[in-house]
Amino acid sequence: VPDMPAVPLTLEGAAVLHQMFRFDRGGWKRLPKEERGRIAAEATNALAPLEKGFSGIHHNQSAIYSQFGHKGDLILIHFRDSFDDLHRAELSIAGLALASFLQPVHSYLSVVELGLYESSAKTYGQLTERNLTPHTPEWNAAVEETLERQRAAMLPRLWPAIPDYRYICFYPMDRKRAESNNWYSLSMPDRQRMMHEHGQIGRRYADTVRQIITASIGLDDWEWGVDLFADDPLVFKKLIYEMRFDEVSAVYALFGSFHFGLRVPARSLGGLLEGELPAL
Amino acid sequence: VPDMPAVPLTLEGAAVLHQMFRFDRGGWKRLPKEERGRIAAEATNALAPLEKGFSGIHHNQSAIYSQFGHKGDLILIHFRDSFDDLHRAELSIAGLALASFLQPVHSYLSVVELGLYESSAKTYGQLTERNLTPHTPEWNAAVEETLERQRAAMLPRLWPAIPDYRYICFYPMDRKRAESNNWYSLSMPDRQRMMHEHGQIGRRYADTVRQIITASIGLDDWEWGVDLFADDPLVFKKLIYEMRFDEVSAVYALFGSFHFGLRVPARSLGGLLEGELPAL
Amino acid sequence: VPDMPAVPLTLEGAAVLHQMFRFDRGGWKRLPKEERGRIAAEATNALAPLEKGFSGIHHNQSAIYSQFGHKGDLILIHFRDSFDDLHRAELSIAGLALASFLQPVHSYLSVVELGLYESSAKTYGQLTERNLTPHTPEWNAAVEETLERQRAAMLPRLWPAIPDYRYICFYPMDRKRAESNNWYSLSMPDRQRMMHEHGQIGRRYADTVRQIITASIGLDDWEWGVDLFADDPLVFKKLIYEMRFDEVSAVYALFGSFHFGLRVPARSLGGLLEGELPAL
Amino acid sequence: VPDMPAVPLTLEGAAVLHQMFRFDRGGWKRLPKEERGRIAAEATNALAPLEKGFSGIHHNQSAIYSQFGHKGDLILIHFRDSFDDLHRAELSIAGLALASFLQPVHSYLSVVELGLYESSAKTYGQLTERNLTPHTPEWNAAVEETLERQRAAMLPRLWPAIPDYRYICFYPMDRKRAESNNWYSLSMPDRQRMMHEHGQIGRRYADTVRQIITASIGLDDWEWGVDLFADDPLVFKKLIYEMRFDEVSAVYALFGSFHFGLRVPARSLGGLLEGELPAL
Amino acid sequence: VPDMPAVPLTLEGAAVLHQMFRFDRGGWKRLPKEERGRIAAEATNALAPLEKGFSGIHHNQSAIYSQFGHKGDLILIHFRDSFDDLHRAELSIAGLALASFLQPVHSYLSVVELGLYESSAKTYGQLTERNLTPHTPEWNAAVEETLERQRAAMLPRLWPAIPDYRYICFYPMDRKRAESNNWYSLSMPDRQRMMHEHGQIGRRYADTVRQIITASIGLDDWEWGVDLFADDPLVFKKLIYEMRFDEVSAVYALFGSFHFGLRVPARSLGGLLEGELPAL
Repeated sequence: VPDMPAVPLTLEGAAVLHQMFRFDRGGWKRLPKEERGRIAAEATNALAPLEKGFSGIHHNQSAIYSQFGHKGDLILIHFRDSFDDLHRAELSIAGLALASFLQPVHSYLSVVELGLYESSAKTYGQLTERNLTPHTPEWNAAVEETLERQRAAMLPRLWPAIPDYRYICFYPMDRKRAESNNWYSLSMPDRQRMMHEHGQIGRRYADTVRQIITASIGLDDWEWGVDLFADDPLVFKKLIYEMRFDEVSAVYALFGSFHFGLRVPARSLGGLLEGELPAL
Repeated sequence: VPDMPAVPLTLEGAAVLHQMFRFDRGGWKRLPKEERGRIAAEATNALAPLEKGFSGIHHNQSAIYSQFGHKGDLILIHFRDSFDDLHRAELSIAGLALASFLQPVHSYLSVVELGLYESSAKTYGQLTERNLTPHTPEWNAAVEETLERQRAAMLPRLWPAIPDYRYICFYPMDRKRAESNNWYSLSMPDRQRMMHEHGQIGRRYADTVRQIITASIGLDDWEWGVDLFADDPLVFKKLIYEMRFDEVSAVYALFGSFHFGLRVPARSLGGLLEGELPAL
Repeated sequence: VPDMPAVPLTLEGAAVLHQMFRFDRGGWKRLPKEERGRIAAEATNALAPLEKGFSGIHHNQSAIYSQFGHKGDLILIHFRDSFDDLHRAELSIAGLALASFLQPVHSYLSVVELGLYESSAKTYGQLTERNLTPHTPEWNAAVEETLERQRAAMLPRLWPAIPDYRYICFYPMDRKRAESNNWYSLSMPDRQRMMHEHGQIGRRYADTVRQIITASIGLDDWEWGVDLFADDPLVFKKLIYEMRFDEVSAVYALFGSFHFGLRVPARSLGGLLEGELPAL
Repeated sequence: VPDMPAVPLTLEGAAVLHQMFRFDRGGWKRLPKEERGRIAAEATNALAPLEKGFSGIHHNQSAIYSQFGHKGDLILIHFRDSFDDLHRAELSIAGLALASFLQPVHSYLSVVELGLYESSAKTYGQLTERNLTPHTPEWNAAVEETLERQRAAMLPRLWPAIPDYRYICFYPMDRKRAESNNWYSLSMPDRQRMMHEHGQIGRRYADTVRQIITASIGLDDWEWGVDLFADDPLVFKKLIYEMRFDEVSAVYALFGSFHFGLRVPARSLGGLLEGELPAL
Repeated sequence: VPDMPAVPLTLEGAAVLHQMFRFDRGGWKRLPKEERGRIAAEATNALAPLEKGFSGIHHNQSAIYSQFGHKGDLILIHFRDSFDDLHRAELSIAGLALASFLQPVHSYLSVVELGLYESSAKTYGQLTERNLTPHTPEWNAAVEETLERQRAAMLPRLWPAIPDYRYICFYPMDRKRAESNNWYSLSMPDRQRMMHEHGQIGRRYADTVRQIITASIGLDDWEWGVDLFADDPLVFKKLIYEMRFDEVSAVYALFGSFHFGLRVPARSLGGLLEGELPAL
């Protein structure tokens, strides 16, 4: 009997870039007020259309956040149809006059991913019962059929709109490959069970927090990025604290830096640069 | 019998931001004395009202510290009613003329937290005896009742005044999730016992040191921040050294960088910038 | 019976340098348009001949990529006949007028390597059966004969052309030497079996992704560098994710930073510096 | 029987600050020679009185070292009666005209500490035999009596003069809290035995090297700082290498960065800034 | 029977400083050609005599290397009779006009060391048979006699000439003190055996690579520095890769950053600064 694949099926959607910038407020203040106005207006005009999304099919969208603390001043998030489009967005931002006052201090490149643990277990099981061998044309066709069906069903989650909440929390994470606790050496059923328990916690918070998971293996330094969106930032803390006790996080999660920001509608960008908190 | 929740009940209070700045003393000295005076006065006028607190109900307060060593020159601490207010404070500081001489080199974002280990164990036990299932409406209502009662009783500790001591010690910390020693895999009773022993050490120092614990899961890079306030900085060392031998610290604590500063009344800020140690 | 050598036979080819630069776009924009054109043209003229390769025998070649995110803006990759030639390339780039706008933020020095695990096992086995002792002249001559034969057979992979794909993913890696999981303490047959399984995954992706492995022990901070080239960047993610579950990666791989870029034909460099995405 | 305290008794003396500066030699050379002379003279005049100590009772003293390598150019060490005085010293240095040419790149804040392992074991044992309970008033009074007696006996070591040797070696260190080797989980007798063996090595080097231990728990990022002073820098290497094999170092010590410098009498500071090695 | 010392006997020779500089090529290009020539000539005149060595007895010598990659542009290596002389060399370099274009980005301070494992085992064994106790005057005198004899025999290796090869590879290293694999807890015979096997690999490469080991315990952040010199840089890779499989490296070695450079005769320095690769 050939081994079932260890890797779960996944679906991929929007290409995503997080950009964290430090704002040169000193240089900004030294500009005449009119020039500040002109530069801010150019940025607003460029970013306002993007916050609605600019494609009829997918949610190609960008959003601005004002970051707390010294890690950066502005967070820009871009969701796009392709990596080509994503890089075009990056070059556009770099072309704004405002960019001379923005120092890139951090970024994160990833792609929206849905991990299909339940579906993988079911599909792999059925195919094995049919005596199919992994990676044969028959196996691949059957897997592709499953993926196609799931992709159609989950389209809105693969190309998500940026949730319209006031606060964002972003952090990257890995699954641990330590000496005795190694996620990648666990069996599919063990991983599936833990991911299932993990998901149940999240479901209890569905009313107050939206989560978008992006994958970054081969794209950036961690394996996944997590974006949480909420109006009450305390739910970030409560959700993540509760999750930290479940097995998959307690034993197998490694976390990177946390980035926390407040949504800035494009029309409020000029005000923010002058020191005004965007209105609710 | 359903499992009791692993996560202890917590209460949250003030949103808190620590800011560490390097002061560009070279640039400062090159300013004419009058301009230095004007800039310092603007900062003093902005910060003086905040050191008393500016809300009738909560201790919305900011405080200044002169930091020792190369990690920074000024520490500003802000306690606020909400994260919106906290970010407004951050933007106000950035709007001061003094800000052109302040480079943000570190910061910490967190929220005042009281961890209710004893109360959680009691409440979870009672609810389980009443055959309630976690996360059902009945369970949640009973838990919320407990939280409401505790919140009322602990109001001053949730919205604390910044203690009026000469020295501050701030550091962030995590609970370890190592291969064999993993805090988040321990049972609630084990964690409760260790937290209790830990608290008993702190109580012996209550006369000379004040402690404020803030949580930062989902907000910043460590799980908690600890602020200690005292007139004699040696008690920081004695307290933390003694605690390092108790089980919860010896085995399960990971510490970040330590920040040490001396309180600067807003009215003494101008003097400090000219090199004068604030009077006792 | 003398021990067989633990180190597998390897073949070495082109000397390779990866250079990551941050582009000073602010300074660039401040130049008159004509001067920008002149500087870009000089760089294009220098780099265009190198992207075809400039030696009749080997693929001495350089290529440009536009990097995503804050880690850098331009990646230059140089394959050369020798380390002397490689350093000459580095000095040439530094001599361009464009170099005043390029800050070197990262680099990687390595040499194309083919690890001959299967061939080593076979050769060492045969020589041991002939009762030869490792490192004797007879042993060395027989080993050199094997290497010579393999070198001739694998010439194109030792001096590879830079694959003509739109995207690149580069990362360095180590084999772990942890307390209980130590790659360098494993037997040759164990290592050979794991490398074989690893290679089988790669073979399934051969249609969509090209891989070049370079060794950097004694040259740079990690043991190997991996370059992946593809038109669809999602295959980077799929390939590396699938590999992460095989034993040699799950247990024995340590990864450095990931660098991701989009190919820039030399003739498109000027356009890129003005903010235009290179055409497909 | 109540448990004996795990924490050993300690005595604290002088508050200590190490400052490491990079010297802007380029900017310095651009000054007219006369101005360089004036600025150097101001610094010499400020620092010369401090190198003798300026208190009749304690050795309130500062010293200058020229640091080797890229980590910094100047090391300043300050021993003071209090943290208030120490910060006053820091502000004074920042007020010198020379400070515009000094970039603070590292520092260390700590307090002279004598760890009384032998005395703690004896005292705790006696008090337990007298059936006293730790932390009761009787216990505390008896402990305070011991501390008072030791403090009087060890006064010169608590407020030490900076040893008059040509070379200094400074490094911070921790005691390990690893998964199986945790210093803070060891019994007092085990720790006492290891500290005793450790001390015996040091005693053999007493003729050629002076050591000052400072504690930094709650003050800076490591638990202790170690200053070694000698005329022959090879004894630093020999002493530390030999100690690395004793149990407390081999198993339980974690070391930070090493800083190495050559003593600069205040009167030789001007010469050093011009590139002259201070005479023996 | 008293324990034999755990620390092996060592001999120390030349004090050594590695300096890595980034070269401000942009600033350099902005200088008039004549001034560049004058500045380069001053540096060449200062460094040319040092590359021959300038003492009749020892090889007091300095050498220049052009570094590959972004870690630095120039490596300077100084071997001197004493740390006083070494710091004088450092101050001399800082005094050159060229120094305004050199930013120190890395350095390493160490001392040539020969570790006498075989001799230590033999000597300690003989002295123990003579019933001598370690650290008694008799023991010390006998040890000093051994050291004196070895020192005379190994003089050229203690004060080595800088090998006249085209390429250099420098890296620092530690012996591991991990939880179960701790070099410093091993017995002398175990360490001696592993060092012996390690040395045998090196001996097979003696024709093509020269190695100089320097110790840096108490001087810099790692325990040892390793310099390899060769005309063919591939032997660096082959030697270190082969050694990585021997027990002392596989299990007990920790490596720092690798620095790789190409020898620059002092007379070729001016050319290098203009972008010319030094001739073979």
